[in-house]
Amino acid sequence: MLRNFFIGVDGGGTKTHIRLESEDGKVLGEGWAGPANIRLSVDVAISSISNAFEQAIYAADLNDVHKSKDVHFHVGMGLAGYEVQSVREEFLAKQKNLGFTHCEIQSDAFVACLGAHSGNYGSIIICGTGVVGLKYAKKGKYQVGGWGFPHGDEGGAAWLGLETIRKTLHLCDGRGIDSLLLQHVKQKLGGSAESVTEWACYANATKYAEIARDVFKFAEQKDTIALYLLNNAATHIEKIFFALDKFENDSKIKLPCSFVGGVSQFIVSLLKPNIKKRLVLPRGDACDGALLMIREKYNQS
Amino acid sequence: MLRNFFIGVDGGGTKTHIRLESEDGKVLGEGWAGPANIRLSVDVAISSISNAFEQAIYAADLNDVHKSKDVHFHVGMGLAGYEVQSVREEFLAKQKNLGFTHCEIQSDAFVACLGAHSGNYGSIIICGTGVVGLKYAKKGKYQVGGWGFPHGDEGGAAWLGLETIRKTLHLCDGRGIDSLLLQHVKQKLGGSAESVTEWACYANATKYAEIARDVFKFAEQKDTIALYLLNNAATHIEKIFFALDKFENDSKIKLPCSFVGGVSQFIVSLLKPNIKKRLVLPRGDACDGALLMIREKYNQS
Repeated sequence: MLRNFFIGVDGGGTKTHIRLESEDGKVLGEGWAGPANIRLSVDVAISSISNAFEQAIYAADLNDVHKSKDVHFHVGMGLAGYEVQSVREEFLAKQKNLGFTHCEIQSDAFVACLGAHSGNYGSIIICGTGVVGLKYAKKGKYQVGGWGFPHGDEGGAAWLGLETIRKTLHLCDGRGIDSLLLQHVKQKLGGSAESVTEWACYANATKYAEIARDVFKFAEQKDTIALYLLNNAATHIEKIFFALDKFENDSKIKLPCSFVGGVSQFIVSLLKPNIKKRLVLPRGDACDGALLMIREKYNQS
Repeated sequence: MLRNFFIGVDGGGTKTHIRLESEDGKVLGEGWAGPANIRLSVDVAISSISNAFEQAIYAADLNDVHKSKDVHFHVGMGLAGYEVQSVREEFLAKQKNLGFTHCEIQSDAFVACLGAHSGNYGSIIICGTGVVGLKYAKKGKYQVGGWGFPHGDEGGAAWLGLETIRKTLHLCDGRGIDSLLLQHVKQKLGGSAESVTEWACYANATKYAEIARDVFKFAEQKDTIALYLLNNAATHIEKIFFALDKFENDSKIKLPCSFVGGVSQFIVSLLKPNIKKRLVLPRGDACDGALLMIREKYNQS
C-alpha cells in the first residue's frame, strides 16, 4: 500500500531541524543535527540532513519500512547559503543520494517566512549567528542581508563577537576605552593582544557568535560597550526592516513582519517604537514553512 | 678564507624583500618573493624567504660559493604574524633548514621602525594590506594594531575592501545609498548580491585589498562613499598615532613618527594637521632595519 510522508527541513548555519508528518498532517517524528549551511560545506549539510532524517524516522517508528518502494518521502527544505549558485548546484547533484521521492528547496529564510505567516504574504527578520531579512509578497520574494560573515550579517551574533574582539584588541593596545565586558573577554582569551589574536586566527562565525553571549550578559549589567554594540545591532535590524518595507509598497496595508532568532530577544526592546508595534509573533517555524511548501507542490502535481 | 655576509629580510603579508650586503656594508644583491606572513602559513613564509634569498645570491654572484662552510650568512628578519606564539615556535623550528649561520627575528613592523629611524627611537605606522603601529623607545617596544584581518587592521586595504563589499551588498539589497564606486564594484563582481556573496565567499585579505584600488580611484572622482571610507581609515590611523604617542610620554621631546605603506599616500592628506606636521619621512626601509638589527647583534657577539 502506497504511503506518503511529508518532511520539513530547516537547515540553518548552526543546526538542522527536521519534522516528519503523515499525509493528514500528524507530526510523527522530529530530528536535529549540526549545521546545513551549504555555502560552508555541502557535504556537512548532506550529512546533517541525513542524521536528522534518521532520528525522525526512528522517532516515527518507520525504521522497518522507510526503504520500501511503496513509501514516498516528499521533502521541503530551507537551506542556509542557498543563494550561492555554485554550491546550490553541487547540493542539488548530491542530495539525490538522500533517497527522497520529491525534494523542493529554497533558502532557510524563505521557509521561515512561510512558516511565520502560515504561507501568507509577510516578512521576517532572522537574527541568530547571521542576520537575514526576507519578504514574500504578491510579485515575488526579496532578500535583505543574509550574505554571510564577515562581509555581511551585521547585527547578528557573529558580527557582535567580531566587533567585541576588535574593541578588546583596542583595549589591549591602548586605543580603546575600558569596560567590564572587554576586560572579561580579554582575560577569557588569554589576557593579551597576542593571545586574543591567536584565538581570532582560528575563529569562524560560530566561534565569534559565542562571544556574543558575553555581550548579552554584560548588557544586563549596563556595561557601556555591550549596550553600544546591541544598539548598533538594533540599527542594523532597523535598516533591514525599512528596506523590506519598501518592496511592493503599493498598498495601504503593511505586511506583517516577524523578528525571530536567538539574538532577537536581546535586541527587540532597543528597536524604534514604530517598528516594534509593527512586529507580529510567528505562527509557525521554518519546518512548518518547509512542509507548507512541499505540500503545496504535491497538491499541484 | 672566512667571508661574512649580512642579510636583511622584510617578510610582509603581501611580499618578501631581501637585501644582501658585504661585511663593509655594500649592497651585493636583492631578491623578492611572495608573502611571508607566518600567521597564515609558516611553509609559505619559508618558501618565500628561500626564493628571495636565491635571487639575492644569484644577483650577488655567490652561486658557486654560498654553500661553502667558510661563508657565513648573518640574517636579520622581520616577519608578519610574529606576535602569534604558536606559529613563531613553528617558524623557529623550520627556519633552521634555510641554512643561515645566525638568525635574529622580530616582527616586520619592528624592523621597519628601526629602518625608518636608522636604529634610533621613534615610531612607525604601516598602512598596506594590514595596518600596524610600532614605537621603539627607551624602555621597550609597543605595538598598536596589526592584529590581523578581519578582527583588526582597521584602515588598511583589506579593511577598505571589506567595508566596500558590505556597502555594495547594502546597495544591492536596498539598504544602502547609490554611488559610482559601489555600482562599479557591484558590476565587477557579477552584478547582484548573490554574485558578490559568491566572490566574498572565497576572498581572503589579499583579495579584499584589491578592492581598495577602486576606492582610491573613485575618491579621486570625489565619490561620496569612497571619500567616506578613506576618512574613516584616516580616523583609525589617528587613533593608532595617539595610542603610540602615549607610551613613555614622559619627555617634552616627541619621538618622530613615519607613516608608510601602499595605502598611506591616499590617507596622509586626510589626517589632522597636528598629526601631519609630526610625521617624518623614513630614512630607510624594513630591510635596512633588519640589517641594522643583525649587525648590532653580530658586533655584540
